[in-house]
Amino acid sequence: MELWLLQDEDAHVQMRFRVLQVLHRERSAYQEIAVMDLGSMGRTLVLDDAIQVTERDAFVYHEMLVHVPLCAHPRPRRVLVVGGGDLGAVAEIVRHDEVERIDLVEIDARVVDLSRTYLPWAEAAARDPRLTIHYGDGFVFLQAEGPRYDVIVVDAPDPVGPGVVLFEAPFYEAVRRRLDEGGVMVTQSGSVWFQAELVTKVRRGLVEQFGRAWVYWAGVPSYSIGPWTFTGVSLGPDLSRPDPARAARLATRYYSPEVHRAAFELPPFLRERLEG
Amino acid sequence: MELWLLQDEDAHVQMRFRVLQVLHRERSAYQEIAVMDLGSMGRTLVLDDAIQVTERDAFVYHEMLVHVPLCAHPRPRRVLVVGGGDLGAVAEIVRHDEVERIDLVEIDARVVDLSRTYLPWAEAAARDPRLTIHYGDGFVFLQAEGPRYDVIVVDAPDPVGPGVVLFEAPFYEAVRRRLDEGGVMVTQSGSVWFQAELVTKVRRGLVEQFGRAWVYWAGVPSYSIGPWTFTGVSLGPDLSRPDPARAARLATRYYSPEVHRAAFELPPFLRERLEG
Repeated sequence: MELWLLQDEDAHVQMRFRVLQVLHRERSAYQEIAVMDLGSMGRTLVLDDAIQVTERDAFVYHEMLVHVPLCAHPRPRRVLVVGGGDLGAVAEIVRHDEVERIDLVEIDARVVDLSRTYLPWAEAAARDPRLTIHYGDGFVFLQAEGPRYDVIVVDAPDPVGPGVVLFEAPFYEAVRRRLDEGGVMVTQSGSVWFQAELVTKVRRGLVEQFGRAWVYWAGVPSYSIGPWTFTGVSLGPDLSRPDPARAARLATRYYSPEVHRAAFELPPFLRERLEG
Repeated sequence: MELWLLQDEDAHVQMRFRVLQVLHRERSAYQEIAVMDLGSMGRTLVLDDAIQVTERDAFVYHEMLVHVPLCAHPRPRRVLVVGGGDLGAVAEIVRHDEVERIDLVEIDARVVDLSRTYLPWAEAAARDPRLTIHYGDGFVFLQAEGPRYDVIVVDAPDPVGPGVVLFEAPFYEAVRRRLDEGGVMVTQSGSVWFQAELVTKVRRGLVEQFGRAWVYWAGVPSYSIGPWTFTGVSLGPDLSRPDPARAARLATRYYSPEVHRAAFELPPFLRERLEG
């Protein structure tokens, strides 16, 4: 029997991944969670039918989501991750010695539990003494009183269901209030070719709130057949300029100081769409 | 009835494109040729089941295949295209006023005929007075006596069947003999994630022949779910440095002088694989 996991790009384009084994499947209070062996893509976490991370290419996404804001910030000490229960973002953040405190706010404890069981990077990340995991709604967490952060990393799911709020103006306003002086925030913002309206909407929403936003990209094969975008804002540093010494110290597989800068050089067709 | 065109990445990963209409289908002397309407990807040329160009994203591939070598060369007057019967590369080359002569050598006249009928850029490109189309084997053409070129663009198909020769040492040797002083050559070299051995092999073969090779990349959605690579060599100019004035004059959708330079900044995991 052949099982395939289908990922729609639009009504005419699909990716299909062969499912060698379903390692775990359950319905949590929030969503359907599955852990699968996808063969050449490795172990994969799937939430409500959408691939979240695969063993093979997760490093592209997490390195670019995390090291860009952390290397652009001159001294990132307090970091907040919104979402990111697979702990892939945390596994990259802990590599920065300057970081003193990491808060992660994830709505679904079962995602964290299952990631710790099945994903190779998660258990070590979970045990880092700087990390505190808060179970709850990311928007509610940010609206409450609490410490300010040097870096906020929004590891948002697709903008459907409970994820919608993470792409709206009130959320960006809450982010702004919880960013410390000179702070930076980055969020994933969708596929260049198949979520063009989302990329444009995120950038516009952030420009309205912060005056300026930076869009950069990287190819994350399991997310889309085209490149994936990230959008960031800053209360101080230029997000496209890494601290070269700190960036070069990271033994990363996708990220480098040169890749950091290059990722902000978008082609004219994308720039026009974003700014049009 | 739903028809889907399947493109295998490996045994576990596929792309699927909905076929709204098969506009033409025939078996030529060399291969099966189809022109299809793939809906959101537009009109598409398919050779032996493999997508060659789609209306929607062909510009990424052709702009990066052509403008990188032409803008790196200080004065490209004579240009040869090996393969490229869809005329997408020629359609980009003709935008360079410095170019005085374009030779295209394509094995299958039916590919050119059908492209002129069905692909929006092809007829105007075919009528450019600087272009001469030679029907025949690209390797044989290069081995014969003939003019030398400032730029050779190898718009190779996948390295299967008749395409294999375009990825082998004797072909690179023939390229070298037909490059003029200071000449440059670029070839497509496959998918980062799903043809890693090919990318490495092409680079190694070119380094052996020319002493140095440059690898750069771009996301061409219809070719692979990950980025696509190009590999080039030079008898003079640094391939990663465009002439800024000439590069900026092109009204391109993907290419720009900044994108040109950024495309050579490869992530460590790819550099290690290429150089390992």
